[in-house]
Amino acid sequence: MSEPMDYASAGVDIDLEGSAVASLIGALSKSVRTPGTPGAPVDLPGGFGGLIEFGDNLLAMATDGVGSKLQIATSLEQWGGVGIDCMAMNVNDLLCVGAEPIAFVDYVAVPKPDPAIHAALGASLAEACRQARVTLAGGETASLPGIVTELDLSGTALGWLPKGEAITGERLVAGDVLIGLPSSGIHSNGYSLVRKIVEHAGLNYTDTAPFQTTHPNRDLVRWTEGDATLGEVVLNPTRIYCDPVVDLLNAARGPASFGIHDVHGICHITGGGLSNLLRLHPSLGWNIQTPLPVLPEFEWLQSVGGVETREMYRTFNMGMGMVLAVDSEHADAMLAWLNERMTGAAVVGHVEDEGHRVVHALDGVEFSHY
Amino acid sequence: MSEPMDYASAGVDIDLEGSAVASLIGALSKSVRTPGTPGAPVDLPGGFGGLIEFGDNLLAMATDGVGSKLQIATSLEQWGGVGIDCMAMNVNDLLCVGAEPIAFVDYVAVPKPDPAIHAALGASLAEACRQARVTLAGGETASLPGIVTELDLSGTALGWLPKGEAITGERLVAGDVLIGLPSSGIHSNGYSLVRKIVEHAGLNYTDTAPFQTTHPNRDLVRWTEGDATLGEVVLNPTRIYCDPVVDLLNAARGPASFGIHDVHGICHITGGGLSNLLRLHPSLGWNIQTPLPVLPEFEWLQSVGGVETREMYRTFNMGMGMVLAVDSEHADAMLAWLNERMTGAAVVGHVEDEGHRVVHALDGVEFSHY
Repeated sequence: MSEPMDYASAGVDIDLEGSAVASLIGALSKSVRTPGTPGAPVDLPGGFGGLIEFGDNLLAMATDGVGSKLQIATSLEQWGGVGIDCMAMNVNDLLCVGAEPIAFVDYVAVPKPDPAIHAALGASLAEACRQARVTLAGGETASLPGIVTELDLSGTALGWLPKGEAITGERLVAGDVLIGLPSSGIHSNGYSLVRKIVEHAGLNYTDTAPFQTTHPNRDLVRWTEGDATLGEVVLNPTRIYCDPVVDLLNAARGPASFGIHDVHGICHITGGGLSNLLRLHPSLGWNIQTPLPVLPEFEWLQSVGGVETREMYRTFNMGMGMVLAVDSEHADAMLAWLNERMTGAAVVGHVEDEGHRVVHALDGVEFSHY
Repeated sequence: MSEPMDYASAGVDIDLEGSAVASLIGALSKSVRTPGTPGAPVDLPGGFGGLIEFGDNLLAMATDGVGSKLQIATSLEQWGGVGIDCMAMNVNDLLCVGAEPIAFVDYVAVPKPDPAIHAALGASLAEACRQARVTLAGGETASLPGIVTELDLSGTALGWLPKGEAITGERLVAGDVLIGLPSSGIHSNGYSLVRKIVEHAGLNYTDTAPFQTTHPNRDLVRWTEGDATLGEVVLNPTRIYCDPVVDLLNAARGPASFGIHDVHGICHITGGGLSNLLRLHPSLGWNIQTPLPVLPEFEWLQSVGGVETREMYRTFNMGMGMVLAVDSEHADAMLAWLNERMTGAAVVGHVEDEGHRVVHALDGVEFSHY
């Protein structure tokens, strides 16, 4: 095609979204809940929000939706994975501050109630609760024919951690080792671009995927026989990292040779791709010298869409859904611990003090703002 | 008009919604979190859900949206109250189990970001946090042009209470006194019918309300000069009952002559109107002999829409947004306590053991299922 595709041309204006969110946050006054009482906000270094006091512990809340991935699921009437996507987007965010997710509530908006959709969502959320090890503590199904034209799904996760153990990025130092955890696919970001590229390619999601879909770092959730379809690949549920991250943190608190304060930062790679790393520290940089293998769907999307490499890494996770920045002396032990529980976790780089930027083994993949 | 209007003819099928929700809940498996650990579900008498264990305390989550009231707000570009509506729908639900709300997160879905909407929502949510005395612990703004055609707003509230103090309805007995707390207007339920009636009446929301809008039980939030418009009346923000209910519960734990276990049941009157009371106990009944005064907008809606009286009480709060069922020996003291803090709270009836039903001073207003 003549013009390379990018996220903005797919209809998403990240700058406009940022401005809208800033308007909303700017209008919010300080909490009326005073320090030392349940619900008082915790002001953390690095601008991490969402944590509140609760006695000797902190509670964390995360809220997010599945976004335009839902439109593909709805077009295929395949909602079996979207509950997992919704859970993952929320609990993976909680993990980043060191919180253990414990409960979840879902919010479903539909033009009219449809028992088939709701049964599929129920099964998907039940599986999501199992994977994330949380209690489904409630939910709401709203019929909003004048507001939504098809399914919207979002949710809120609740987590906790002991006071003094929040992972805030303040312990990050140059030399920290970056451990990448593999993603299961596109996860839940970048779907405006995915849909545009698939449309451009003239393919249907029910077509056999025009690339080798298997990869040692992930399994595909299938609903057809034979070769995997494009729909099965792009709808593969987002990986939930509670197992192994919660267990890693608990091991660090207990028997392991590494300690809880050896985990210096955790980053969930979502919209914004690798540029998300910049949120973890105001001045340190991130060098991804030995990235995880790129999953085949990303190579196909880039090739068919003519997307620039940097744009791919700013939009998609490219095969790495979470990054842990850990103390260099304990990195080997942590990686060995992780490798016993997850295929494909690997050292991908290190933290460095050469400017607030992300650099990558691939030329041109560099970010200095998100 | 020839046919009386009702909720189903306004496009909402409560039975279909119930069936859809049952499908969703039916598919949910038991929690993986075991009793005694953070997040374990608490099985309460009366089927109250949403409570989880957390050490010596319980945590409660509630999630809900504003629904089709948003469509009127959007048509008038008046979003100043909808953050309060969203907060109220959630925190008022938490109060019903005896939980003190402490934190809130919002979820905003829009076709595209609009700084004007988000600034208004931010101000509204800030005021809502002040009224509900909670910390805004996060939020998400999603741009979903293929899913929503205009603003959708929902949220999740988190509350807590000491173990052993959940209000479950199990202490309810015949003779308990019902104290009604006045509503501020239509609150956030029944708007499909409101919109249908206003359309039928051929009125615009910017027209002066064709009835006397003032009432001693509530103030109107105004954005025009002169006589109140119909839009100002129907968009009046939902009352948040944290103050006085949280303070009442705290007084009951401390200096007051009544105790925490003298509050036997709390009901948030939402969609379903008075039939909501039936959820509080499997066999006892509710006699509303001396109802709170009906707010003028309900009289107008009934008259113009030709709505049957029973249907009005099954759809709207009719002037009473919350009901406390309290021990008869302490009812006078509690009412006196409430009257010092809120205009219009009054004894409206009592609990009786003559069948699982709601009866009302008005003939024909009787419910035996919700």
